Amino acid sequence: MTHSHGTLYIVSAPSGAGKTSLVKALIEQVDEVRVSVSHTTRPMRPGEVDGVNYHFVDHAQFRQMIDQQAFLEHAEVFGNYYGTARSSVEQSLAKGHDTILEIDWQGAQQVRRVLPQARSIFILPPSREALRERLNNRGQDSNGVIEQRMAQATDEMSHYHEYDFVVINDEFSIALQDLKAIVRSGHLASQRQQAQLQQLLDALLSD
Amino acid sequence: MTHSHGTLYIVSAPSGAGKTSLVKALIEQVDEVRVSVSHTTRPMRPGEVDGVNYHFVDHAQFRQMIDQQAFLEHAEVFGNYYGTARSSVEQSLAKGHDTILEIDWQGAQQVRRVLPQARSIFILPPSREALRERLNNRGQDSNGVIEQRMAQATDEMSHYHEYDFVVINDEFSIALQDLKAIVRSGHLASQRQQAQLQQLLDALLSD
Repeated sequence: MTHSHGTLYIVSAPSGAGKTSLVKALIEQVDEVRVSVSHTTRPMRPGEVDGVNYHFVDHAQFRQMIDQQAFLEHAEVFGNYYGTARSSVEQSLAKGHDTILEIDWQGAQQVRRVLPQARSIFILPPSREALRERLNNRGQDSNGVIEQRMAQATDEMSHYHEYDFVVINDEFSIALQDLKAIVRSGHLASQRQQAQLQQLLDALLSD
Repeated sequence: MTHSHGTLYIVSAPSGAGKTSLVKALIEQVDEVRVSVSHTTRPMRPGEVDGVNYHFVDHAQFRQMIDQQAFLEHAEVFGNYYGTARSSVEQSLAKGHDTILEIDWQGAQQVRRVLPQARSIFILPPSREALRERLNNRGQDSNGVIEQRMAQATDEMSHYHEYDFVVINDEFSIALQDLKAIVRSGHLASQRQQAQLQQLLDALLSD
């Protein structure tokens, strides 16, 4: 039986919603799910591995990739570039991996334009208070910094309706089950199954 | 929090695929899922209850409902009429119940024309041999009768690609988990959640 092409997932969330932990648990628990490794120009930090955490490139390389339209989406954040290479994603999908892009609403809009079949998921915190608490717990930041993060989070959350699915991360285990159900339902989407099922269908429909 | 409108599910399968047992287990295990009760002109059998197994009506009543366009779909099988009343479905959905229609591919086509937002699921047996065995086990029927049923099943299965999801009923428990994942992912679809989430979203996005 030929294995089928993976499904592309876009996962977005405001900072503090728990996206990274949820995606990490998802890929640990569901075999065929992978996270796409992005390209970045920011310096490698201690403990990071090139090709695992990011593909680390310099500005010239990154600009060349932009010129070659090698990115599905890219953005500049505080002088550093981040991007999702089309080839990384295509290779991962071709291997049959459900492939997750952890990107913001702007990246999501760029990817949807090129790959409208992507399934997109927005993760929300259970309340504004919970979000503020999570953003606060990260360090000893001033109220001003926290309010700035809240404003950024609010901006990001205002795009939730552009997504196919909304998951509320109140209880971690329930939100994780939600993500698993979305991925599992993706496997059952009949369009996707047609390649995988062809032999079975040929046999079932032969008379 | 206002409860949201239920999602309409169409479930089709060839006879012998195990649809009825799967749907029964699904509604027993998932609270908000209900099966729509059809109207029929066939005589009530011992043990059946009007309004539970079917709404039992006579031919004149059924024809009047057809004239009043009261049915989402209807069909004649061996001289008896079967139909899904639009009002039954709408009431069930309005109560927030995910509502299942167990209908064949022709009924499914009729319903999709009126309610394109319905999510549709096709259940397949794991193999032609398994199907033949299941159709055979039902009684002491002749080979001719069994072959006729196989031909009918093949005709029904040839429409699987018109459905949003395909579930293979090889192991019952896995197929049941598949159905649950489809229903759960339906709850997370952002369009559906917008009514339910409005208060949370208002609070999250207020500044």
